[in-house]
Amino acid sequence: MELLNRIGENARAASRELAGLSGAARDRGLEAIAQGLLDAREDILAANEEDLKAGQSSGMRDAMQDRLRLTPERIAGMAAGIREIIALPDPIGRTLSGTTAPNGLKIRKVTVPLGVIAIIYEARPNVTSDAAALCLKSGNAVVLRGGKEAIRSNQAIAGCMRRALRSAGIDENCIQLIEDTSHETAEGLMKLNGYIDVLIPRGGAGLIRNVVMNSTVPVIETGAGNCHIYVDRTADVDMAAEIIYNAKTSRPSVCNACESLLIHRDIAARALPAIRARLAEKQVEIRGDEQVCAILGDAVPATEEDWGTEYLDYIISAKTVGSVEEAIAHINRYSTHHSECIVTQDYQAAQQFQDGVDSAAVYVNASTRFTDGGMFGFGAEIGISTQKLHARGPLGLPELTTFKYLIDGCGQVR
Amino acid sequence: MELLNRIGENARAASRELAGLSGAARDRGLEAIAQGLLDAREDILAANEEDLKAGQSSGMRDAMQDRLRLTPERIAGMAAGIREIIALPDPIGRTLSGTTAPNGLKIRKVTVPLGVIAIIYEARPNVTSDAAALCLKSGNAVVLRGGKEAIRSNQAIAGCMRRALRSAGIDENCIQLIEDTSHETAEGLMKLNGYIDVLIPRGGAGLIRNVVMNSTVPVIETGAGNCHIYVDRTADVDMAAEIIYNAKTSRPSVCNACESLLIHRDIAARALPAIRARLAEKQVEIRGDEQVCAILGDAVPATEEDWGTEYLDYIISAKTVGSVEEAIAHINRYSTHHSECIVTQDYQAAQQFQDGVDSAAVYVNASTRFTDGGMFGFGAEIGISTQKLHARGPLGLPELTTFKYLIDGCGQVR
Repeated sequence: MELLNRIGENARAASRELAGLSGAARDRGLEAIAQGLLDAREDILAANEEDLKAGQSSGMRDAMQDRLRLTPERIAGMAAGIREIIALPDPIGRTLSGTTAPNGLKIRKVTVPLGVIAIIYEARPNVTSDAAALCLKSGNAVVLRGGKEAIRSNQAIAGCMRRALRSAGIDENCIQLIEDTSHETAEGLMKLNGYIDVLIPRGGAGLIRNVVMNSTVPVIETGAGNCHIYVDRTADVDMAAEIIYNAKTSRPSVCNACESLLIHRDIAARALPAIRARLAEKQVEIRGDEQVCAILGDAVPATEEDWGTEYLDYIISAKTVGSVEEAIAHINRYSTHHSECIVTQDYQAAQQFQDGVDSAAVYVNASTRFTDGGMFGFGAEIGISTQKLHARGPLGLPELTTFKYLIDGCGQVR
Repeated sequence: MELLNRIGENARAASRELAGLSGAARDRGLEAIAQGLLDAREDILAANEEDLKAGQSSGMRDAMQDRLRLTPERIAGMAAGIREIIALPDPIGRTLSGTTAPNGLKIRKVTVPLGVIAIIYEARPNVTSDAAALCLKSGNAVVLRGGKEAIRSNQAIAGCMRRALRSAGIDENCIQLIEDTSHETAEGLMKLNGYIDVLIPRGGAGLIRNVVMNSTVPVIETGAGNCHIYVDRTADVDMAAEIIYNAKTSRPSVCNACESLLIHRDIAARALPAIRARLAEKQVEIRGDEQVCAILGDAVPATEEDWGTEYLDYIISAKTVGSVEEAIAHINRYSTHHSECIVTQDYQAAQQFQDGVDSAAVYVNASTRFTDGGMFGFGAEIGISTQKLHARGPLGLPELTTFKYLIDGCGQVR
C-alpha cells in the first residue's frame, strides 16, 4: 500500500534522527507537546465534539461515548501525564552489562530504541498522546492507527503534537497518525516488515486476536485478563471477601479485574456467604458450579464457557476445588496468564501457588488490581503484556527499548 | 493437525512438570543424556550412515554431506557440549529486581522458563542435542522439527535422549522430535498457538523468511548475516587487511563472516591493494563499485544486488564512501543488522559509527567473527538473533527464559 510505505519510510528516517538525539532534546520535545495540548485545548474539544455527535447519530453506546469524550480536565490530565513521563529516567544509553574478554575485547550491552513502534487502538483518544509520549521518551518513532470513532479527535491531537515537535526542532514524522481508518490500513500495518519493529495492539480481545493471527511484524500482545482469585482452605475470610470485592468491583471494565473465583471445598460453606454479601453491595452476579449453587441459593449455574470468559462486567464465575494443585491446574488451563491471586495463611500453599501458576503476576493476599505500571513503580505504561517474549506484565519505558553490543578492540581476530 | 496437537499437549504437560524441577534435577537429566549419547554411539553412527547413503544416492552436495556427517569425535563433541551446559549457572529462579511498594506490597521479578520452545532446523544433526540440552537446562520443553535429510540420525539421537530422561525420572516428552518431515508439519508448527511459546528457526535465509512470514506463534529470527567492515580514512592498513582477511576467510559459511567491505575514498588507493593481497591468499573474489574496479584491475563490477547479498562463500563486495555518515547510511540500508565493524584510529569516527549503526553487534577494530555466544562469555548459544524483540545477538540461556512478578501482600486492596 502506497500510503503505508510512505509512512513507513518517514518513520524509519525519523527514527534514525531520533536515535541521535540526547535525552534532554527528547524531553524538550515532550514539554512542547504537553504545553501544545493545553494551548490547543479548544480545537481538540471542538474536534472531539464532532466525533461525539457522529457517534450519537450512529447509535454509539453510552459506555463507548464516555471513553471517547474529552473534557478540559481530561486534556489537562493528558498534559500532566506527559510531564510525568518527562520526569522519568531516560531508558536509552544505559549499560546493562559489560565485560572484558580474555583477548582484551571490551564488550558492552547498551540500551537503544526499538526503532519504529506501531500502535493499533480503539476509541480512547488519550491513547494518542500517552502512547506517542512514551515512544518519544524511549527514542522511538511511532505510527498510530486509532479507531474511526475518534478520528477527528486523534487528528487534532496528533496535529498539535507534530507542530510541537517542529517547534522543538524535531522531525514531526516521529509521530504519525494514519488518517485512513479503513480495515486495509490496519491489515497493511500488520505486514509492514522492514519498517515497523514492533506492533502493539490496544483494545478488545477481537482486535488483539486479529493482530496476533495476521501480523508478520513482531507483536506484543496486551490486555486480555481472565484473572482468578483462589481462596485457600486457611484463608482469612474477611480478607478474602475484601480482596474479591476490590478486584471485582473497583473497576470491572479493566484487564486486571477479577473474573473468576476458586474456593477450597473445606472453607466454601463458611466463606461463600461472606463473599456473596460483599459482592451483593454492587449487585454482582455469581455464576457457580454445582457446589457453589448448593451453598448460595441465588447463584446462577455456570457453563463450561464461563470458566474462560472475561466478563468486564459485574459478573464473576465461582468454582470449588479440592486442593491448591487443582486450583493451579484450573488457572493454567483457563487463564489468559495476566494476574492471579491466592488468599491463604498457609506458607506452603503460598509458595506452591506462586511457583505453579504460569501468569505475568502472581499474588498472595492482595488484589489483582495492582498489576499496573504506576502501581509497580514504572511511572507509566503502554499496556499489560500477556505474552512471554520480550515483555511480560506492565509495559514501561524499559520494555520499549532493545540493546546492542558495542565491542571495542585493537585489531583482534579469531 | 491431530499429530501436532498431541505433541503440543505432551509438550505443555511436560513443561509444567519441568518448571517444578530443581536445577540439580535438570542437570542430572543432562548428564544422563551426555552419557547416553556416548553409550549409543554405534546406533547413532549406523543411523547417520543410512542418512548419508540416502543423501549420496539422491545427489546430495559434498558441503551438505559434511554438515550431515557424524563421527565418533563429533558425537564425543556433542556429549562434551552438554557437559559444558551443565556447568553453566541455572538461569531459572533468579530475582532480576524487586521493590517494596509504599503500601507494603513486596514485588519481585523472577526468571521462569518460557514453557515450550519449537525449533525448525535443517541438516545438521548435532542441533538436535545442542538445542534440546539448552532448552532442558533453561526448564523448557522442546519440540524439534529437523530436516528430512537427517531424519534417521535425529531419530537415533532423540530416542537416546528420551531414554536418558526416563532413566533420570524426567518426563521424556520434555524432548519430542517430529518424525514426519513433510511441509505440513513445519507449517502446522508455525500455527500451534496455545502450545508453543516461541519458535526458533535455524537454517538458511529461505527457511527463516518462511517462518517469519507464516508463523502466528512468536518467532525469534536468527542467522542471516550480511556483515560489513568499514575501513575509515585513518585506519591502520595492516590491521584493516588482517581483520578483513579473518572475518571473510576463517569460516565463510557462517553468519558472522564479513560479506561487504566499505572503504573511505581517501585511503582506498593505499589500502585496497593490501587488502586484496591478503584476500588473494584464499582466492577471494572482490565485487567492486567503479572506483574499486579502477584501483584493483582484477575486481568484478558489482551490481545493486551485491550490496544486499550474503554470499557465505569466498566472495566479498567492496564499495567506496566519502564519509563515516555515508558508511553508516549504507549499512543501515543493506545490512541484516547482525554485526558490523569500523577500522579506524579516529576517536570521533569510532563513537559515531557505534552510535549510528543499527545492528546487534557494532565493532571497532576487531573481527565480526567474535559475535558468538562462546566468545561473548555466554557459554553456549542456540543461534544469533537479528531481531530486536526479546533477544538481540547471541541467544544464550538467559534469552530462553521469561519472568513473572511475584507479589506478597497482607490484604492490600486498591
